[in-house]
Amino acid sequence: MIIDSVEVIPYRIPMRKPLEFASGRVDEIDHVLLRIQTTDGVVGIADIPPRPYTYGETQQSIIAVISTVFAPLLVGMSALDRGAIHRRMHRTVGNFTAKAGVDVALWDIMGQTLQQPVHRLLGGAADSVRVSHMVGFADPLKMVDEAERVREQYGITTFKVKVGRRPFLLDVDVVRALREHFGSAVELYLDANRGWNAAESMRVLDAVSDLDITFFEEPCDAAEILGRRRLVAHSRVPVVADESAPSLADAAREITTGGATAVSVKVARSGFSEAQKILALAEGLGVEAIIGNQIDSQVGTCGSVALAAGVNYAGRHAAELSNFLDMADDLIAEPLQIIDGAITASLQPGLGAKIDEDKLRKYRQDGKGN
Amino acid sequence: MIIDSVEVIPYRIPMRKPLEFASGRVDEIDHVLLRIQTTDGVVGIADIPPRPYTYGETQQSIIAVISTVFAPLLVGMSALDRGAIHRRMHRTVGNFTAKAGVDVALWDIMGQTLQQPVHRLLGGAADSVRVSHMVGFADPLKMVDEAERVREQYGITTFKVKVGRRPFLLDVDVVRALREHFGSAVELYLDANRGWNAAESMRVLDAVSDLDITFFEEPCDAAEILGRRRLVAHSRVPVVADESAPSLADAAREITTGGATAVSVKVARSGFSEAQKILALAEGLGVEAIIGNQIDSQVGTCGSVALAAGVNYAGRHAAELSNFLDMADDLIAEPLQIIDGAITASLQPGLGAKIDEDKLRKYRQDGKGN
Repeated sequence: MIIDSVEVIPYRIPMRKPLEFASGRVDEIDHVLLRIQTTDGVVGIADIPPRPYTYGETQQSIIAVISTVFAPLLVGMSALDRGAIHRRMHRTVGNFTAKAGVDVALWDIMGQTLQQPVHRLLGGAADSVRVSHMVGFADPLKMVDEAERVREQYGITTFKVKVGRRPFLLDVDVVRALREHFGSAVELYLDANRGWNAAESMRVLDAVSDLDITFFEEPCDAAEILGRRRLVAHSRVPVVADESAPSLADAAREITTGGATAVSVKVARSGFSEAQKILALAEGLGVEAIIGNQIDSQVGTCGSVALAAGVNYAGRHAAELSNFLDMADDLIAEPLQIIDGAITASLQPGLGAKIDEDKLRKYRQDGKGN
Repeated sequence: MIIDSVEVIPYRIPMRKPLEFASGRVDEIDHVLLRIQTTDGVVGIADIPPRPYTYGETQQSIIAVISTVFAPLLVGMSALDRGAIHRRMHRTVGNFTAKAGVDVALWDIMGQTLQQPVHRLLGGAADSVRVSHMVGFADPLKMVDEAERVREQYGITTFKVKVGRRPFLLDVDVVRALREHFGSAVELYLDANRGWNAAESMRVLDAVSDLDITFFEEPCDAAEILGRRRLVAHSRVPVVADESAPSLADAAREITTGGATAVSVKVARSGFSEAQKILALAEGLGVEAIIGNQIDSQVGTCGSVALAAGVNYAGRHAAELSNFLDMADDLIAEPLQIIDGAITASLQPGLGAKIDEDKLRKYRQDGKGN
């Protein structure tokens, strides 16, 4: 499993349906495909999503840090020496999704070499994972229509509603419309992506108090230290740290200082190794964890499925795995299937995410494609 | 990796040199050798140490719970389905070392089947592990002699001094004698195994304040809730939870409520799976972790070496790996070597702890031996 070469390929795929939320709007995905090849010819892959509005990384920064800083550290090491590799990468600050991509590709190499699916190496907790679907900004009726379509077509019954607009009654109307349409047949939770301030968020909590909301994610900016803590202290609904808890240390700080009472865990920014630790922290401290979506392609989603199926504590809630439904295409050769509201964990060795080379040629942006 | 059969074998080996400490004295080890065999003929093993004075388990209770409760749950499952297996075992309360033994044997099966040493599957942080040696009760001069002998013979320079006797000045004399003998060439920390109360422990802290003590482990019973917290709040030396933190939940409670400012992690009571989580919790919360010794045989010590070499955060301090030096014999076929104060992690697949069948016949106590 000695690492021989590292390849980073920028690519672009349009969204079939743009995803809009309080902190941004995604019309196309400009991701980086990472391929790490070993001297035995095994190729581990990861899909890396730049999210400048969340982590400050860009497609170009990811390519630069991997090819100029990380690749020289990686070549010649065994993919099994994850701990040593992480110590070396740790010397470079930030770059969450770039580091996570390296970690995911190492696990993919390990799984392929050992001929085991990654979710079983991670812990073998389950065979399949329940899916939660994210409903982006639109008029209330359109959002209800989308949720209904997704429920009918895929059997999904857990919805994360993107909120954080002003006036907030617009979003409250959406949530009320969803609850009235579905009754108690669905689970609903909110994600404001820091769209409101703490005082507004408190008013929202009152306005939706009869609507059985499971979680309230990033209602306001965690940097509004006291307001956020006052909100968390008053909220009966668990307040989820997502972009405010990208690392183990951030998660620990937010949880222990009253900034959050639940945490979102994303393979795209934590890899498997750090995600395992954050899940252990959450389990130890008794706060809920949700497997989140970084607007992941199907290639990226394979990693989230592996984590959710691998770790017991990750399986307590439906995982956010369906953002790929809004993408016009994908690099994956064998598309994921959502059936009866769940995705079955791949039994292929590694992540089971084979790349369609024709599509890669079509969408890559480094001049080596069609 | 389908589990076919589970075997539990009680055995007894005398101590060459009895280990005496505040909560007990060990003249012989009455352990249980666990062997889990798969349908492919792979045999995963674990050494399980009953410690009635710590967990309430006995050799007989370990054999009973594994053979009558756990074995029927295990047979027919894949050793890779650790998460599912733990969910099933979790229905039975307590039985820490029995559950840990099952987990260790599962990892051994995984490593042997995948042809990888366990420490690399756990994370591949290091190739070898620094050793800390435990010095049991004796006269001050004898304890200095033992430490000096161990340093000369094995190159060990970190010593955990068993304390907790009354009057406590006896122990203070030992620590002072050690520091005067070695100067700054060694690291010293204390383990009172709950031998004192909180007020005495506070006086001990004053009495050793000039002796550069790294840790103070279980100075008093964690069940003395307020006294323990007052001590922890006043102690500049990190107070280590050991027997008060056998599980992730216990560790989290002690750390977050001021009962401890460091934690001891033991494979013998947590297995690898729970130990990984406790290490992640400690890392996240920024408290130190020590890999502890449950008076482990060499077979058991192979597991501690794998954890300490596998996980980055486990490698911050010397690990307690040398209790086997005091045992008259061992079931292991290829004895561990402590060289220059360190043990090299085995590169054999799995745990690398082969059993000497002649010795097993000699020491087993189920009537099937010599």
